[in-house]
Amino acid sequence: MDRRSFIASTALGGSAAAATLATPAISQGMEKLTMVTSWPRGFAGLDDAAQKVAQNVNAMSDGNLEIEVKAAGELVGPLEVFDAASSGQADMYHAADYYFINQHPAWAFFTGVPFGMTATEHNNWYYHGSGAQRHNELGEIFNIKPFVAGNTTAQAGGWFRKEINSPEDFNGLKFRMPGLGGVVLGRLGASVQNLPGGEIYQALASGAIDGTEWVGPWSDEKLGFQEVAKFYYTAGMHEPSAALTLGINLERYNSLSQTHQSIIEIACGHANIWNMSQYGYFNGEALRRLAGGGVKILEFPDSVWDAFGTAAQEVYAEFSEDDLFAEIYEEYIAAMQDSSGWISRSTSVFRRQRDRVLKG
Amino acid sequence: MDRRSFIASTALGGSAAAATLATPAISQGMEKLTMVTSWPRGFAGLDDAAQKVAQNVNAMSDGNLEIEVKAAGELVGPLEVFDAASSGQADMYHAADYYFINQHPAWAFFTGVPFGMTATEHNNWYYHGSGAQRHNELGEIFNIKPFVAGNTTAQAGGWFRKEINSPEDFNGLKFRMPGLGGVVLGRLGASVQNLPGGEIYQALASGAIDGTEWVGPWSDEKLGFQEVAKFYYTAGMHEPSAALTLGINLERYNSLSQTHQSIIEIACGHANIWNMSQYGYFNGEALRRLAGGGVKILEFPDSVWDAFGTAAQEVYAEFSEDDLFAEIYEEYIAAMQDSSGWISRSTSVFRRQRDRVLKG
Repeated sequence: MDRRSFIASTALGGSAAAATLATPAISQGMEKLTMVTSWPRGFAGLDDAAQKVAQNVNAMSDGNLEIEVKAAGELVGPLEVFDAASSGQADMYHAADYYFINQHPAWAFFTGVPFGMTATEHNNWYYHGSGAQRHNELGEIFNIKPFVAGNTTAQAGGWFRKEINSPEDFNGLKFRMPGLGGVVLGRLGASVQNLPGGEIYQALASGAIDGTEWVGPWSDEKLGFQEVAKFYYTAGMHEPSAALTLGINLERYNSLSQTHQSIIEIACGHANIWNMSQYGYFNGEALRRLAGGGVKILEFPDSVWDAFGTAAQEVYAEFSEDDLFAEIYEEYIAAMQDSSGWISRSTSVFRRQRDRVLKG
Repeated sequence: MDRRSFIASTALGGSAAAATLATPAISQGMEKLTMVTSWPRGFAGLDDAAQKVAQNVNAMSDGNLEIEVKAAGELVGPLEVFDAASSGQADMYHAADYYFINQHPAWAFFTGVPFGMTATEHNNWYYHGSGAQRHNELGEIFNIKPFVAGNTTAQAGGWFRKEINSPEDFNGLKFRMPGLGGVVLGRLGASVQNLPGGEIYQALASGAIDGTEWVGPWSDEKLGFQEVAKFYYTAGMHEPSAALTLGINLERYNSLSQTHQSIIEIACGHANIWNMSQYGYFNGEALRRLAGGGVKILEFPDSVWDAFGTAAQEVYAEFSEDDLFAEIYEEYIAAMQDSSGWISRSTSVFRRQRDRVLKG
């Protein structure tokens, strides 16, 4: 705990106050916020999203609000960032909320869940359905004001040393997968681990794990998984969306001026679309390179998807014993069906016809 | 022309200046910008996106930068907004750039084009490929600094009084469709019109047109098209993405401080994701209501898509006689193929399996 006292910009930072006091306003209204992240410095996409939030805020606040980004391990460990922001040791975290399902299982919804919403559907629910409101509700329990602030979009099924031909191939497999997806894989007999990003390559290279999911072609290629595993499943059940969260210590957030609160919220929204498109743009190129470099690009057979589905339903039933989880799950599924219903009749039809006509 | 002189906030608006001069900074650094739009006031989604940009800017600038939104017809007509911002009569426009293909055909790419990118693919290209750079290049010719600032996502194929069973059914049909999509329909013998949104219902009700596309279920329902046409084609070839643009008079933009420039750029990015999700969220509900209310929800048969495809290739060949159009088109197709390649192997596979497993 290192709760600092400070002068809120609302009280003294405005232009009128500056004029009255006739001393440099810049030293009065200046707010510094420390962001701790789950990402090693320079980690493609993830650290980029955190840095983008900070850059956006710094660029828009005219020097009155500044965010300093601390990479994983610089102030606290990659999975300790939630506690740090909740307690006030840091002002905010940038992470994937499903790292914190041991605090509350409903955090999983604010990253992504098995057979759940795609990134597009997630944003629909978040910005215009009950998503942001539920995120706030959950945050309040832990003294956190959360904003969606990035999204890797659909994550790849992962890297394996041998082909997956049936659900039985997961039995005894040592596999890295966080969140509810990992719980689902556990039901198929996998030995599931939640290693932070910076520790996966070594574990895979040494044989400590048999396989891993991480993000998608662009990020995965940068971590070098293609050097130690040759089977890549591009589609997975576990994270059809993987939203990233900026979670701010709630008292710290409430102490900020409305202007600074707006700057943070809008900075996060811009970082979200910027980050989603970053993955979308660079994954395509990277997939071509991986395929060209000898990686075998595969899909899980239907029997595996069916087993994933059965296990996922069991996991949802179990977690729904928690009332808040159950309430959010119900809203989440209803919103997903509406969003998906329209996409199925519009973009999906268009994509099918575009492929057919342009290749014809 | 009403080019006003003004004091740039860079010169006098900062806090240090306020402190030195000891007079209310608010009257010194204050910038007011007038936005003219192609949208009637309160038009679902479209006016919402324009208003969102203004709200974002106003909320973040602490009263130093204010955007006032003028609806279609309040200062200039809905399709005159481009000229107004280009000439400096207004400071900025919010519109769909394909309204201005008579100024240059390449404006079409910055809304959406037949058989072109989906909204997701468009953002990938815009934020991380050559999209924004090409948009700027085109803007400079017309004294405009453009930003993507909204997207309706995939537009519906449109409303018809009778079913479309073959390409011949378009022959002689009086249909409202702007942009390159309209040019393509013209090749099938349709009599194509580009009516602004506020004039369509009356034209359809009176029989002046036989059918229209507008946006999607949510916006279309609000305009009441289901009262006068019963056949609704949800997927169309013409606008798989329909990006909206904030275009600022370039000299006016260059006169703004870096802080205010950042505020505008980031406000537009947030408005983009917010607006995309708005359509995504509300289209699903509206489609259910329309179907429940007796509208027949249909898809064009393959023969019609094939005819669209042939006509589109002819239109691209013709417009590619313009060098800039041809250069952008080539980059655009390459970026689309990369983005689509990854989506086909990830989100599309996931969506197919989710539908199969959850319905199984």
